Amino acid sequence: MANERVGVVLAGCGHFDGAEIREAIFALLALDEHHAHAVCMAPNIEQMHVVDHITGQTGGARNVLTESARVARGDIRDLASVQADELDALIFPGGFGVAKNLCDFAVKGADCTVNPEVSRLVREMYAAGKPLGFACIAPALAAAIFREAGVKGVQLTLGDEDKGAARALEALGAVHLSCPATEARVDAAHRVVSTPAYMYSTPRISEVRRGVSEMVGRVLGLVKKG
Amino acid sequence: MANERVGVVLAGCGHFDGAEIREAIFALLALDEHHAHAVCMAPNIEQMHVVDHITGQTGGARNVLTESARVARGDIRDLASVQADELDALIFPGGFGVAKNLCDFAVKGADCTVNPEVSRLVREMYAAGKPLGFACIAPALAAAIFREAGVKGVQLTLGDEDKGAARALEALGAVHLSCPATEARVDAAHRVVSTPAYMYSTPRISEVRRGVSEMVGRVLGLVKKG
Repeated sequence: MANERVGVVLAGCGHFDGAEIREAIFALLALDEHHAHAVCMAPNIEQMHVVDHITGQTGGARNVLTESARVARGDIRDLASVQADELDALIFPGGFGVAKNLCDFAVKGADCTVNPEVSRLVREMYAAGKPLGFACIAPALAAAIFREAGVKGVQLTLGDEDKGAARALEALGAVHLSCPATEARVDAAHRVVSTPAYMYSTPRISEVRRGVSEMVGRVLGLVKKG
Repeated sequence: MANERVGVVLAGCGHFDGAEIREAIFALLALDEHHAHAVCMAPNIEQMHVVDHITGQTGGARNVLTESARVARGDIRDLASVQADELDALIFPGGFGVAKNLCDFAVKGADCTVNPEVSRLVREMYAAGKPLGFACIAPALAAAIFREAGVKGVQLTLGDEDKGAARALEALGAVHLSCPATEARVDAAHRVVSTPAYMYSTPRISEVRRGVSEMVGRVLGLVKKG
């Protein structure tokens, strides 16, 4: 099967308050290299924070969909308008925006709640047996959604450095898998693939590229053939 | 020679008002794949425009250095503080920001003027015989700087679709070279490499990746050994 339609959910533009830009671009690149069609989307909501990426200071207001459009070169949809039957798979690049804008894991950890439309779309995809891919911190979002759905034991990566994040993942009912930045891990039973990317503090950009490419390739491998 | 230090000049974050994000990320990726060290930098100035990448509407104010830091994950310097003797080569990803913030080619065409610090650094690099790389619209910036420096006949790409841009390039005293998005062209006499990237209206992202990677590789090939 070629020309799969794969949703790419963006959480803004910049790793401190939005999508991790490199993970997003490498997901789009890998999809194109596999001749899959990317459908970029983001929720039409305000960002939790706007962060100066030099000083770390917060201030101002920006919209997640509007900022995500910078990554998507304007070719982007409001996530609330997207249905699972339009897609063959769904991928989440990481960045703090996933844990700030798509859910509030960044401030509430295992007590987090998820944006209702993001949760809806992921649950629709899962119920339809369509594969899901998560990079960086996005597996925490996955774990929160699977907890809402009553699905336990989903195997996910968060890298091997941030022990607190891994504990929160397990508190959400998921299982943390060790994984280097250059690889991805597959939970075949749940059709979920993940890669840690910038959950490591100093990966080389080429390592992140390899891990995200592997994640995308494994997701496409799980798409049910026509 | 390995571990070359290569400056990457960013013009913001988003192709309508800043750096073309994909070209910037692919430049950083290619440098890392070649084991070169990227030195990201941007001028500490206000953007000419802030453009909504969905609607095209302008409004608000953002700083070029601050927004560029999103692409660089915060590891970025004020271009005014960078000297040519710190670098082995200098690369400019494209995006309208190059033609709006680093110079005003986007509004003045061949009558444009260049940010003085950008012009200074490029001239220092050229005078030292160090190679320069340009993607997308950035060759127009190059042509404007070479005109200021009194250097004529530099061979540059701007893609084969935008005839007006190519004419403006030649009005600046440069020579336009035909080139597909997947390739780069080398002006060995001037140690300048360029690739058209998103000067084409609908390149595949994997084609842009190939062209930018080729540009970076050829720039590194021009770095004087030892």
